[in-house]
Amino acid sequence: MPYNLTAAEYTLIYNALSFTFAVMSAATLFVWLLGDHIAKQYRVATTITGLVTFIAAYHYLQIFISFHGAYSLKDGIVTATGYAFNDAYRYVDWLLTVPLLMVELILVMRLPQEETVNMSLTLGLAAALMVILGYPGEISHAPSTRWFWWILAMIPFVYIVHTLFFGLQASVKKQPVAVRGLVRQACILTVVSWCFYPIVFILPMLGLSGGEATVAVQVGYSIADIVAKVGFGLLIFTIAYKKSELEHH
Amino acid sequence: MPYNLTAAEYTLIYNALSFTFAVMSAATLFVWLLGDHIAKQYRVATTITGLVTFIAAYHYLQIFISFHGAYSLKDGIVTATGYAFNDAYRYVDWLLTVPLLMVELILVMRLPQEETVNMSLTLGLAAALMVILGYPGEISHAPSTRWFWWILAMIPFVYIVHTLFFGLQASVKKQPVAVRGLVRQACILTVVSWCFYPIVFILPMLGLSGGEATVAVQVGYSIADIVAKVGFGLLIFTIAYKKSELEHH
Repeated sequence: MPYNLTAAEYTLIYNALSFTFAVMSAATLFVWLLGDHIAKQYRVATTITGLVTFIAAYHYLQIFISFHGAYSLKDGIVTATGYAFNDAYRYVDWLLTVPLLMVELILVMRLPQEETVNMSLTLGLAAALMVILGYPGEISHAPSTRWFWWILAMIPFVYIVHTLFFGLQASVKKQPVAVRGLVRQACILTVVSWCFYPIVFILPMLGLSGGEATVAVQVGYSIADIVAKVGFGLLIFTIAYKKSELEHH
Repeated sequence: MPYNLTAAEYTLIYNALSFTFAVMSAATLFVWLLGDHIAKQYRVATTITGLVTFIAAYHYLQIFISFHGAYSLKDGIVTATGYAFNDAYRYVDWLLTVPLLMVELILVMRLPQEETVNMSLTLGLAAALMVILGYPGEISHAPSTRWFWWILAMIPFVYIVHTLFFGLQASVKKQPVAVRGLVRQACILTVVSWCFYPIVFILPMLGLSGGEATVAVQVGYSIADIVAKVGFGLLIFTIAYKKSELEHH
């Protein structure tokens, strides 16, 4: 359903989407171009870090094109063209990238093989489930429907938070001293940045509507995606870089 | 707000934007393709050099497309189509690239780790602040508003100039003799090329208006961006190249 946007709101969303595409692409290239700085045993983790931002760059380009087609700014007036603005790209993106973010973290920790497989599977599936359960709420305009799916999606979310803060702590303590703080930061950054999403999700249920809600959701998710994918990814890259140096000597 | 442009003015802007995209892309490829000529300890600096021109190339392509949509030249007559010409891409670009230019310079100097982190953070944040404070002035047509934000943006600018000329001098003197002159040149080039921006910014406040102002701003910023990103970037690449050779023998 298209909303009336002011020229300023249109321009803000337009530039936020373009900005996010630029950041995601740049982060992808940075991580991949410096691939040979990373020891072989962490290269899968940093390659996946770049894949996450690559997939996000692709989807932000699609969201940008979709937004461009759904609204036009002419003579200072924003008009909804009637063509759909496809929000669902975000969920398609998250379905791929959110489990991969979990896998990045597990791989860079280099746990025993069995633990790596178990943790990647359970955290990855929980992350996918969280995204799937959020989707029916996101496409609904009825607050009660939105709350229902929001609550369901919070169950895997709480499970992931619990695992990152408690389940993984024994393994975090086994990390080399030089990177232990960074690994802990990566866990905290995941939880903090992921908290943005359920908050942005409920903004339209808290009375925000029309253009303001569109701005809040589009700009809010863009910021959250940058922190959760690029900020987190650079942390994973730094951990891999430091561990490569440590194990080389 | 669209202005009347003559066919010559339109063509000049059109070609300047296309030229800048070509230069930025070529510089990116040059720096990245020669990555293996650079020692590992300077590769992050030269990778970021390429990222800056990559991000600028992307934004120049978008500015070009936006300009193409905002004006049409048909039968020798330029007509404003009514679609907005999105100037803001430049600020979106600068928000990313100007802090990264500071980081390039700091990384290629290879200072002690703590100084690297502190200098990158303070110079990077000052650069971002400068861009953010310039933006409200740029989108205003009222000279008093433009002057107000111009003056505010000059504060972090002066801080950066001061740091490059004085704060960094002790570290510049510790650089190998073979590159000390180049590092000093990089500091001077930053300050000189960055001086273009506040000058281009005030051109519309000095009586330039309509098509002439549009030409001055578009062509002026394009030249400034080429000097500040490609000229500066090639200097950083040369420093990294020479230091790689020195440290290899």
